[in-house]
Amino acid sequence: MKKRVVIVGGGFTGFNTAKVLSNRKDIEVTLIDRKNYHLFQPLLYQVAMAALGEGDIATPLRNMLAGNDNMTVLKGIVRNVNLESKTVHTDFGDVEYDYLVMACGVQHHYFGNNQWEEFAPGLKNLAQATEIRRRVMEAYEAAERTHDLIERKKQLTFVIVGGGPTGVELAGSIGEMSRFTLSKFYRHIDPKLTRIFIVEAADRILGGFCPELSSRATRELEKLGVQVWTSSAVSNVDADGVQIGKERIEAATVLWAAGVQASDIGKRMGLETDRTGRIVVEPDLSVPGHPEVFIGGDQACFTHQTGSPLPGMAPVALQEGRYIGRTILGDLKGQVRKQFKYRDKGQMATIGRNKAIVEFKNIRFDGALAWLTWIVVHIYYLSTYRHRVFVLAQWGWSYFTFGFGARLIVNKDWRFYGKEESNEDDGCRK
Amino acid sequence: MKKRVVIVGGGFTGFNTAKVLSNRKDIEVTLIDRKNYHLFQPLLYQVAMAALGEGDIATPLRNMLAGNDNMTVLKGIVRNVNLESKTVHTDFGDVEYDYLVMACGVQHHYFGNNQWEEFAPGLKNLAQATEIRRRVMEAYEAAERTHDLIERKKQLTFVIVGGGPTGVELAGSIGEMSRFTLSKFYRHIDPKLTRIFIVEAADRILGGFCPELSSRATRELEKLGVQVWTSSAVSNVDADGVQIGKERIEAATVLWAAGVQASDIGKRMGLETDRTGRIVVEPDLSVPGHPEVFIGGDQACFTHQTGSPLPGMAPVALQEGRYIGRTILGDLKGQVRKQFKYRDKGQMATIGRNKAIVEFKNIRFDGALAWLTWIVVHIYYLSTYRHRVFVLAQWGWSYFTFGFGARLIVNKDWRFYGKEESNEDDGCRK
Repeated sequence: MKKRVVIVGGGFTGFNTAKVLSNRKDIEVTLIDRKNYHLFQPLLYQVAMAALGEGDIATPLRNMLAGNDNMTVLKGIVRNVNLESKTVHTDFGDVEYDYLVMACGVQHHYFGNNQWEEFAPGLKNLAQATEIRRRVMEAYEAAERTHDLIERKKQLTFVIVGGGPTGVELAGSIGEMSRFTLSKFYRHIDPKLTRIFIVEAADRILGGFCPELSSRATRELEKLGVQVWTSSAVSNVDADGVQIGKERIEAATVLWAAGVQASDIGKRMGLETDRTGRIVVEPDLSVPGHPEVFIGGDQACFTHQTGSPLPGMAPVALQEGRYIGRTILGDLKGQVRKQFKYRDKGQMATIGRNKAIVEFKNIRFDGALAWLTWIVVHIYYLSTYRHRVFVLAQWGWSYFTFGFGARLIVNKDWRFYGKEESNEDDGCRK
Repeated sequence: MKKRVVIVGGGFTGFNTAKVLSNRKDIEVTLIDRKNYHLFQPLLYQVAMAALGEGDIATPLRNMLAGNDNMTVLKGIVRNVNLESKTVHTDFGDVEYDYLVMACGVQHHYFGNNQWEEFAPGLKNLAQATEIRRRVMEAYEAAERTHDLIERKKQLTFVIVGGGPTGVELAGSIGEMSRFTLSKFYRHIDPKLTRIFIVEAADRILGGFCPELSSRATRELEKLGVQVWTSSAVSNVDADGVQIGKERIEAATVLWAAGVQASDIGKRMGLETDRTGRIVVEPDLSVPGHPEVFIGGDQACFTHQTGSPLPGMAPVALQEGRYIGRTILGDLKGQVRKQFKYRDKGQMATIGRNKAIVEFKNIRFDGALAWLTWIVVHIYYLSTYRHRVFVLAQWGWSYFTFGFGARLIVNKDWRFYGKEESNEDDGCRK
C-alpha cells in the first residue's frame, strides 16, 4: 500500500520535498498550489522593475515535477485540514493523506490597515510585480504629460515602506533606473530628479544584517538618490502619499515591503501559532502530536536551533523541504528522526549595479565583489538551465547597454467593450 | 517656425512615420498612444500561447523614439479632433498640429453582440494575450482536477471563432502544444484528446490566400487535431460554448479571431468611413479637403490601387507610415505629392512546427521551407536587435526541446485583502 504524501504549496519547501520523493514506487505524492508555477522569489523585484520577464523566474510546477510517475500536481485552494481523519479540504474536494507537508508561505500584512493595500501594493507574486511595474511606469508617463509642477513632483516621488532586502532592492532599482536609464527617454522631465524614500520603523534598514553592512547599504542607496528614513513608522497611507507621525510625503506611488503574516490556516487547523500566524513546530518540523504533519518555509516557526525563529529566507525553506523529504523516507525505513539543523548559507542583498552586501558568518564584504557573488549564487539556484541561460543573457545585455528590460505597462483589464472609459491598449479608440 | 506633426497611435504606421521624421530640426513630432509600447502584432499569438514573453514582442515607444531631439512621446487617450482649428482633444488637454497622422488600428468586433466578449476574448493587445493564456492553461488544470468526464471533455475543448491568420495560428499552437508538449505533464488527462475547432463563416479559411494554400493549411491543421468548420456562422456564444445555427459545441474556452472594426473616431471627426469604420482616404492617404491630415494602417480605407481596400497587414501599415513621413518632408521641400503605392510583400501564415504557407505574387509554397521563410522574415522585421536575439534564442530552444515557454497563469487581480475568495497566487491561504 503506497504512502500518500500531500504537499500544500509549491515554493522552495514544497518543491524540494517533492523532488526528494520523486520517482519512488512506494510513495504517491500530490502537490496542491493555488498558482500553477514555482516562483523564484528572490528575483521577483526584478520583474517588478522590468529587468526580467515573468517567464524568467517562474516555471509551471508541472514542467518541473509532473514528469515523475508518482507525482500529481493540482491547482487548487486548500480550505482546511482535519488532522484526525487526515483529510485536506480543498475547493475541488477532499484529499486524504498519510503524510502532510504544509508550506504556504506568507502574505503582506498591513498591521490591521488592509485598506492601505490599494494604495501600497506588496510584492509576493507575479500579479503584484506586474501591478508595481505598471504603477511606477505610469507615474513617469503622468509626470511627462503634466504641466503642473507640484503634480509632477508628486508623480516623481516613490515611497517604499519597509527597509528589508525587498524594500532595499526595490528602492535601489528605482534609483538606478531613474538615474541611468530613464533619463534618456523623457523630454519634459528629468528622471534624475526622482525622489525615492525608504521608510523603516526600526532604527536601521536591513536589520537581519550586521549594523556595519546596513550602514554601508544606506550609503550606497544614498548614492542612487534614495533617502533612508529610519525610526519612521507609517501612520497612514492614502492615494496621495504617506503620513509618518507629524511628517508627510506626497507621493503618487507607494510600495509595501514591511510586515508579513502567515496563512491563517494554522489557526483554522487548531494549531499553536506565533504573533505572525506561523505554526510552532517540533525539532523535526512536525506539529505537536502529529508526526505525520510537517510545516516548512516561511509558515513554520522553528526556534529549536537559535532560540528565535529561523528567518523567512529561501535557503531556510529549501533546506527544510529537503529535510522533510528525507525524514519521510527515513520513516519508511524505520529510522529514528534526526532534528532539523539549518546550515547557515549567509545572506546577501543587492542595491544596484556593482553594489551589494554579503554576510556569511564572520565574513562580510560589499561592493562589486559582493555584487558578483550575488549574481553567481542567484544564477546557480535558478530552477532550470533555460532560466539560467536567459537570465544571465539579459543581465549581461542590460549591464553593458545600461538599459533595463521592457518597461511595459500592461493593464489589468483586458476587456474593451462595455466600458465608457476603456483602459485597454487600443490606440486612440475611446 | 517648426512644423508641428502630431501622430496618434504607435503601431507600424505611426512608428514608421515618426522614424522618417526623426532628428529633423524643422519638425516637432508628438506621438500619442494609449499604451506605452510598440507591439509587434504578428507574433502576439505566441505570447498568448506562452511561446514568447511580453517583452519579446513589445518595446516602450520611448526607447525607440524619445532619444530624438524633435520627438515627444505621450501616453494618453485622444477623444476627438477639430479639423478646422487643427486641434487634437486628449484626456490631458488639447494639442495643436500642422500635420496630423492618425493610425489607431482596429479592435475586435462582435457583430453587435458585445456581450460575447466576456466568453470569447479577442487578441489585439498584451492584456488580452495574457488573458487568453490564462484561460487556456486554466482549462487544462480544471480538466486534471475534475472526475466528471463530461466536464473534463468540455474543459478540453477549444473553439476559435474566425479562420483568418490569427485564428489559424492560435488553433495550430493549441494543437501542437496539446499533442507534443502538455501530454508529458498531466497524469489524469491525456492532452492529446484535446478537441480544437476553427469556426469560420466563409466557405474556406484564410480567405486572403489562394484556395489551394488554404486547403493545404486545412490539411496541416487536421494533422494537429484541429477540426475546421467552414460555412459556419456563430449564432451565439455563452459561458459553456458556442451555438452555430442548429449545431452546438460545448467548450470551456472560446477565442475570438473574427470581425474587426476601426475606431469610431473617424465618425466623430465627421469623416466618411466604410462599413467597418475605416476612414476613406485620398490617393495620398490624406482625408478629403484636408491634405494636412493623414490616415494610415488598419484604420485607413485605401481603394485607389486595387479597387478594394488594402488588407490590414503589417507590411501595408509599415509602408504607409514611411510614405506619410516622406510626403510630409516632400511638402516642406515644396514637392508635388506622389500617390501611395503598396509594394506587395506577399503574405504568410504559420500553422505549427515546420508548417506554414507563403504566397508571394504567383510563388506559392508550404511546409518546412515556408516555415523557415516565416521565421526569417519575422526575425528580420522585429524592432530591435535585442528582440531578434532573444526571440530567435527562445524559438531555437523550444524547437529542439519540443517545449514551449513558461505557461504561467497570472491572475488579473493582484489584491489579496478584502476578498473572501482571493484569486491571488498565495499558496493555500484562504
